[in-house]
Amino acid sequence: MFTTKEMSSIFSGEARVQRMLDFEAALARAEARAGIIPEQAGRAIADKCRVKLFDLSRLNEQAELAGVISIPLVRMLTELVEGEARGFVHWGATSQDVLDTGMVLQARDGLDSLIGQLLEVGSACALLADRHRRTPMVGRTLLQHALPITFGLKSAHWVATTTRQLRRLHEVRSRSLAVQFGGAAGTLAALGVDGVKVLELLADELDLGIPELPWHTDRDRVAEIATSLGIVAAGMAKIAGDVALLMQTEIGEVSEEAAAGKGGSSSLPQKRNPVDSTSAIASAKLALGAVDVVLSSMVQEHERAVGGWQAEWVALPHTFLFTAGAVGGVRTIVRGLEVDSDRMRANLDMAGGQIMAEALTMALAPHVGRGDAYRVVADLCRRAAREGRELGAVAAGDGRIGAVLSPEDIERALDPLAYLGSTEAFIQKALDDFNEVARV
Amino acid sequence: MFTTKEMSSIFSGEARVQRMLDFEAALARAEARAGIIPEQAGRAIADKCRVKLFDLSRLNEQAELAGVISIPLVRMLTELVEGEARGFVHWGATSQDVLDTGMVLQARDGLDSLIGQLLEVGSACALLADRHRRTPMVGRTLLQHALPITFGLKSAHWVATTTRQLRRLHEVRSRSLAVQFGGAAGTLAALGVDGVKVLELLADELDLGIPELPWHTDRDRVAEIATSLGIVAAGMAKIAGDVALLMQTEIGEVSEEAAAGKGGSSSLPQKRNPVDSTSAIASAKLALGAVDVVLSSMVQEHERAVGGWQAEWVALPHTFLFTAGAVGGVRTIVRGLEVDSDRMRANLDMAGGQIMAEALTMALAPHVGRGDAYRVVADLCRRAAREGRELGAVAAGDGRIGAVLSPEDIERALDPLAYLGSTEAFIQKALDDFNEVARV
Amino acid sequence: MFTTKEMSSIFSGEARVQRMLDFEAALARAEARAGIIPEQAGRAIADKCRVKLFDLSRLNEQAELAGVISIPLVRMLTELVEGEARGFVHWGATSQDVLDTGMVLQARDGLDSLIGQLLEVGSACALLADRHRRTPMVGRTLLQHALPITFGLKSAHWVATTTRQLRRLHEVRSRSLAVQFGGAAGTLAALGVDGVKVLELLADELDLGIPELPWHTDRDRVAEIATSLGIVAAGMAKIAGDVALLMQTEIGEVSEEAAAGKGGSSSLPQKRNPVDSTSAIASAKLALGAVDVVLSSMVQEHERAVGGWQAEWVALPHTFLFTAGAVGGVRTIVRGLEVDSDRMRANLDMAGGQIMAEALTMALAPHVGRGDAYRVVADLCRRAAREGRELGAVAAGDGRIGAVLSPEDIERALDPLAYLGSTEAFIQKALDDFNEVARV
Amino acid sequence: MFTTKEMSSIFSGEARVQRMLDFEAALARAEARAGIIPEQAGRAIADKCRVKLFDLSRLNEQAELAGVISIPLVRMLTELVEGEARGFVHWGATSQDVLDTGMVLQARDGLDSLIGQLLEVGSACALLADRHRRTPMVGRTLLQHALPITFGLKSAHWVATTTRQLRRLHEVRSRSLAVQFGGAAGTLAALGVDGVKVLELLADELDLGIPELPWHTDRDRVAEIATSLGIVAAGMAKIAGDVALLMQTEIGEVSEEAAAGKGGSSSLPQKRNPVDSTSAIASAKLALGAVDVVLSSMVQEHERAVGGWQAEWVALPHTFLFTAGAVGGVRTIVRGLEVDSDRMRANLDMAGGQIMAEALTMALAPHVGRGDAYRVVADLCRRAAREGRELGAVAAGDGRIGAVLSPEDIERALDPLAYLGSTEAFIQKALDDFNEVARV
Repeated sequence: MFTTKEMSSIFSGEARVQRMLDFEAALARAEARAGIIPEQAGRAIADKCRVKLFDLSRLNEQAELAGVISIPLVRMLTELVEGEARGFVHWGATSQDVLDTGMVLQARDGLDSLIGQLLEVGSACALLADRHRRTPMVGRTLLQHALPITFGLKSAHWVATTTRQLRRLHEVRSRSLAVQFGGAAGTLAALGVDGVKVLELLADELDLGIPELPWHTDRDRVAEIATSLGIVAAGMAKIAGDVALLMQTEIGEVSEEAAAGKGGSSSLPQKRNPVDSTSAIASAKLALGAVDVVLSSMVQEHERAVGGWQAEWVALPHTFLFTAGAVGGVRTIVRGLEVDSDRMRANLDMAGGQIMAEALTMALAPHVGRGDAYRVVADLCRRAAREGRELGAVAAGDGRIGAVLSPEDIERALDPLAYLGSTEAFIQKALDDFNEVARV
Repeated sequence: MFTTKEMSSIFSGEARVQRMLDFEAALARAEARAGIIPEQAGRAIADKCRVKLFDLSRLNEQAELAGVISIPLVRMLTELVEGEARGFVHWGATSQDVLDTGMVLQARDGLDSLIGQLLEVGSACALLADRHRRTPMVGRTLLQHALPITFGLKSAHWVATTTRQLRRLHEVRSRSLAVQFGGAAGTLAALGVDGVKVLELLADELDLGIPELPWHTDRDRVAEIATSLGIVAAGMAKIAGDVALLMQTEIGEVSEEAAAGKGGSSSLPQKRNPVDSTSAIASAKLALGAVDVVLSSMVQEHERAVGGWQAEWVALPHTFLFTAGAVGGVRTIVRGLEVDSDRMRANLDMAGGQIMAEALTMALAPHVGRGDAYRVVADLCRRAAREGRELGAVAAGDGRIGAVLSPEDIERALDPLAYLGSTEAFIQKALDDFNEVARV
Repeated sequence: MFTTKEMSSIFSGEARVQRMLDFEAALARAEARAGIIPEQAGRAIADKCRVKLFDLSRLNEQAELAGVISIPLVRMLTELVEGEARGFVHWGATSQDVLDTGMVLQARDGLDSLIGQLLEVGSACALLADRHRRTPMVGRTLLQHALPITFGLKSAHWVATTTRQLRRLHEVRSRSLAVQFGGAAGTLAALGVDGVKVLELLADELDLGIPELPWHTDRDRVAEIATSLGIVAAGMAKIAGDVALLMQTEIGEVSEEAAAGKGGSSSLPQKRNPVDSTSAIASAKLALGAVDVVLSSMVQEHERAVGGWQAEWVALPHTFLFTAGAVGGVRTIVRGLEVDSDRMRANLDMAGGQIMAEALTMALAPHVGRGDAYRVVADLCRRAAREGRELGAVAAGDGRIGAVLSPEDIERALDPLAYLGSTEAFIQKALDDFNEVARV
Repeated sequence: MFTTKEMSSIFSGEARVQRMLDFEAALARAEARAGIIPEQAGRAIADKCRVKLFDLSRLNEQAELAGVISIPLVRMLTELVEGEARGFVHWGATSQDVLDTGMVLQARDGLDSLIGQLLEVGSACALLADRHRRTPMVGRTLLQHALPITFGLKSAHWVATTTRQLRRLHEVRSRSLAVQFGGAAGTLAALGVDGVKVLELLADELDLGIPELPWHTDRDRVAEIATSLGIVAAGMAKIAGDVALLMQTEIGEVSEEAAAGKGGSSSLPQKRNPVDSTSAIASAKLALGAVDVVLSSMVQEHERAVGGWQAEWVALPHTFLFTAGAVGGVRTIVRGLEVDSDRMRANLDMAGGQIMAEALTMALAPHVGRGDAYRVVADLCRRAAREGRELGAVAAGDGRIGAVLSPEDIERALDPLAYLGSTEAFIQKALDDFNEVARV
């Protein structure tokens, strides 16, 4: 429930095995190109590296005993390969080389999937931002009315967040996806002097980065992938949380798209729940739990870890799966979001104009200084609230105000649409910035 | 890989649905007993509450749309029930009542499974503690030789930890397993004045605790379950970590049981890896990540949460699954542990008797005071290390020592078995304490 | 900002040193009682165990070099003690014995402080629950209107949570506060056969529990303290979060007490921010971060840890400090909470009676079955929303309803105060339960 | 104890206030440049922005009440400024603008400090890597002997990790340090059409990045800083952990530098504890706890958060402080590390040559295939272990070996220095890569 179909398939048990076999195939081809194993052996091995040829339930059983899946996998692959080639399977590699590279290949697919999702999120938010540039709504700080903003500005924040997330994922994709190949202790000893050459050919075969040296227990790349995803997930939860808050019955400014069977209640006929927001928030919480595991698992012993690496086998896929759930939830939200601009306007007006208090202060400030202006308006606000009157009415009748501002000045100061500052400029910057990233 | 078969089955998708159906059955029976619904309806509903009657894949699909599995489940159950009884399915309950109570029932099974596992861990450790009461080994602080202990004492620590964990789980089991039943907003409004009566009968049907009031967004009970498991998991990782350290090639004092296909390496023929320790440690790391999610998900909105509750659906099962993996790993370790007491003795002797420095200090202290004794012995230690000699030999030739201790005094001071203090008393206390808990 | 003065003082640097000195004094007295050191030495040592006699800045400097504060502390204490007694300072103990026991003594003070705070929270909530038993308000699930509750019920949840927290802290206090005394490797070797006797006398002196054996690297007690506090902190954040939500401008049902200089804005004259809620929530987040550290630090090496124990020196105090901040914030909130029952009623009525949809369903259900009743009312709700009419009006004009319910039936079904189910019973149970704990 | 003096001073209370004042000064200058406030006012305000002019204890008291430090700070600053200029203090800004920008300025100092520390770590490790290119030692996987490596290679891993950390911090420094300036709701409304211009001038004054739009509740930049530090801290703990493991009495291959009063024990005269490793590991644990808080605090409400932002005030400084502790600990370790190459060689030889099993396999493989070679050598290993003989001797007497390998072949296969594969190439790549980063 807390992921997407696409991400589930990238991190399925079958895909995992295929990605490990992709490593073995690429290794055989690279070693054949390097002249380390016979060309025919390279072909013969690569030919068997197809998950359909493997009995996955037997493989998993043996993996449990061995403590690592790659050992029985290599054994099974060796059994499948016939003739002289059999002796060259997994040549010079260690079980962690297979597993780590397989995981990196899955991570690449996972990053591509997230990037695709985020582009869709960004596009949908960009439409909202563009359409609602001048749709005024309440800006809320500490959950209190603060100042008017527009719904376009709120959406532009979502656009800008998504843009930065995309930039971050592009960078992580280009920097942190390095092949793993070091042999049993990271020296490539079994390959004699040819290690680095094979490493480079292998990276070329898989289109992965070449690390300075094997990274069996240097997990900062993995941690960077995980934390980048955590930042994405939490960023999505911020959007989903705001939507859930805006959907509150008393506020009702936006609504998730309705669909038959969606968001109802088993006992309350009138209910329309923010199910996508809820799902995105829950997914993000789960993603952060997994990120925490990856990060703390970085502390690994010597040349191969006792526990830290193995925890990644579960925690890194979880990070991808649940982050996809968060992004997927927000994608559904923003694509179908119903915006009630009348309600936005009504909420803006509800507190008797008090939300325009700063505007009135700033109108007054050039005449009496910011400090005095603040004190006068604060006083008017308290009075208006006490007497249940509009701020404008109270201001109009106040001598301190009347001495320096005309009725028209007051009216202008209290018009939300006249007090939006750089709102439109900010929206445009966010849109331009997203378009730049989306073009890449 | 990081759990047990038993726990997997308790938290399978099928078991989950059955446990929710158990709630619906018990609710129907309770309401029939209370005279709220016809007796026949109670029977008819309970009769259909069998998971085998449900199409789980269709259920999961609809759950995704609804945002919660209990809504389509109740609908399907309603379709299954025939006649007048159909109208009484899920009477007065809300979707969270079903889900939470189902989860509590799974948690009870999960706690029972963990308690069973821990009893086995405790028994195996108790055997080790008893057998090795006087098997001397190095006590290590900050990974340095400190003082002699016995392997029995180390095992007694494992016993005592397990005993405390058992006590904690027994308490959590008796305190935190409360039925959930509150209706849509926790008032049981749909039951009029009969709510509390039904609540009590329902708890009786399911043999669960009666809460003061519904706890839809008061998740301290759930958090206490999760954190108690986290404490178990981390306690197991401590044991597993010590075993992995003791298995280091240079130390070699214990070894996980050998088995064909277990703990080997795909490239190193001589390898015998601590696979159970590794698995226990990885499981514990994963468990702690899940605990963190449950704990931070306690902050829930009003009468039903937007995300916090839903994250529990995944995180609480994960806590159970991975904690079981940690306990299961340690169970395998301690049941088959191979103990090399010769190697323990050899390691004890390896540093030229320096490990007995405190004993020599304490022998000296009554004569010259603790401070001076410490300084003299520290000086001898440095000299012995510098000259590559035994501490005993250096001490024997030192005038400050010779002035107050006889050669026999020195020899006795340097005998590890004579400097074990309360070791045996501690072991006995730990064993007695475990036996008390195990009898429960 | 995120703690209380009392807790700051319990975990001040000075208090920490005094608590370690309390251990040294108690040890000296216990050993004198056991006849292990001269009675006069016991008195002479205890006499110097006063923090005022120590130069704390010099102590801290030396602690940094030594890697542990107790080593220079013992050295300084030894220098202070004169004559023969000097040789008996810290007899048979190790640095961790001092530090851990000192920390346990601080933890006891900390628990007492939290228990005191929670009693005040509970009392204030109990007043609210009692006063507002029948003050109707909206019950909200997934942030949507669900069903009527009363503000008394919401407060009763706070009471019940606090009651359970108090029970939990009482238990932790009685179970997890054990003296630490094991000597360098947990054998009490330096005390020969007298170890257990001294251990018991020491526990008696400090009024702490006697552990089965030393627990230098068995940290489940510490973890249980920390996680219990985490559960308290998160429970408080739940309350604070609900208050912040209820304070939203559009909802306005409660408000934190106003005070000069409190909760204003540097630019918005009309603002009144939920500063105590905010502070409680932030404190809880910080507490949970610290709990996570304590829990994951349980995995400690052999007889003394390399990092895990030392991290506790900071993380456990943080857990106490920030949990106190969370409880303190909520205490301020609930003591001064301004409740606007008119606004509660207005919000209840705002959605045209839709919140009573379930009540109408249940009124209809005995006549047409729950399923059909649900469908009919859902249909009415949609119609009422579409047409902007009251649910009652739409229902009154609907033939399916009219066929079985009289206008009075409909009216009664739509009265929030008539659809509160077990609300009052639940409130009473929560109050009774709190009173029981408060009497302890 | 778990930080550095430099970082303590960057995150002191005084530095924090000064950094906020730097914002106010820069804002005044920027607005004067933009012609929004009088030039004289800009100078007059900037002139008072010196922490020495402020009463910090009064400030902190008022901050507690206000819920945020910037409100009383702006008030105090306003009081300090005289004449007409007073009215222009904090013009158009909100309290979060001050606090966030101040924090960003501290973060920049913090990043610079960490970069400086890491360069020193890298340099010291590079020296070790260069000096020990061919110092053979045991490579250990899952804490078992695996294959020979060199201490230079191990150090090269530390170099490469540090290099990547440096690259990451440089990037974060250039990407995530954006000025905060949005006014009360992120629209810069109080500045009318001049908002963006002032924003750009302000960024210029402070030499900070210009954000697309204000980021009051878009915290991905802050989270990226925190997670990058977490990755650094955990990477340091990996190094420290390996040093602690290598310092084990039974292994003794390296040692932290000795110093008077350092690493001793209060009861064990012979002890020399890995105090810097311990401190680095503990610091990293604490840092990760703080990172977790920052990451989960990203989920913030609307235009200003209720708790999430405020938790950062503590958690982000903690991240810097404790990460500095981890880096500082490792810096001390690697600068003074004592390397015992004789002990390394002795450990390599200790298991009777079994560590060379893969080398023997690879020598055999071209003749009999990898699979058969593995099986033969595994068999020899078991036999050698069982009989307590050297692997070489057993191999020499085995017919299957003798049939294809000469005694010289066997001897060569069993020479650790002849089986190092790409070790030197890897070391060189790591050194070159570090030098490139160090030159920046």
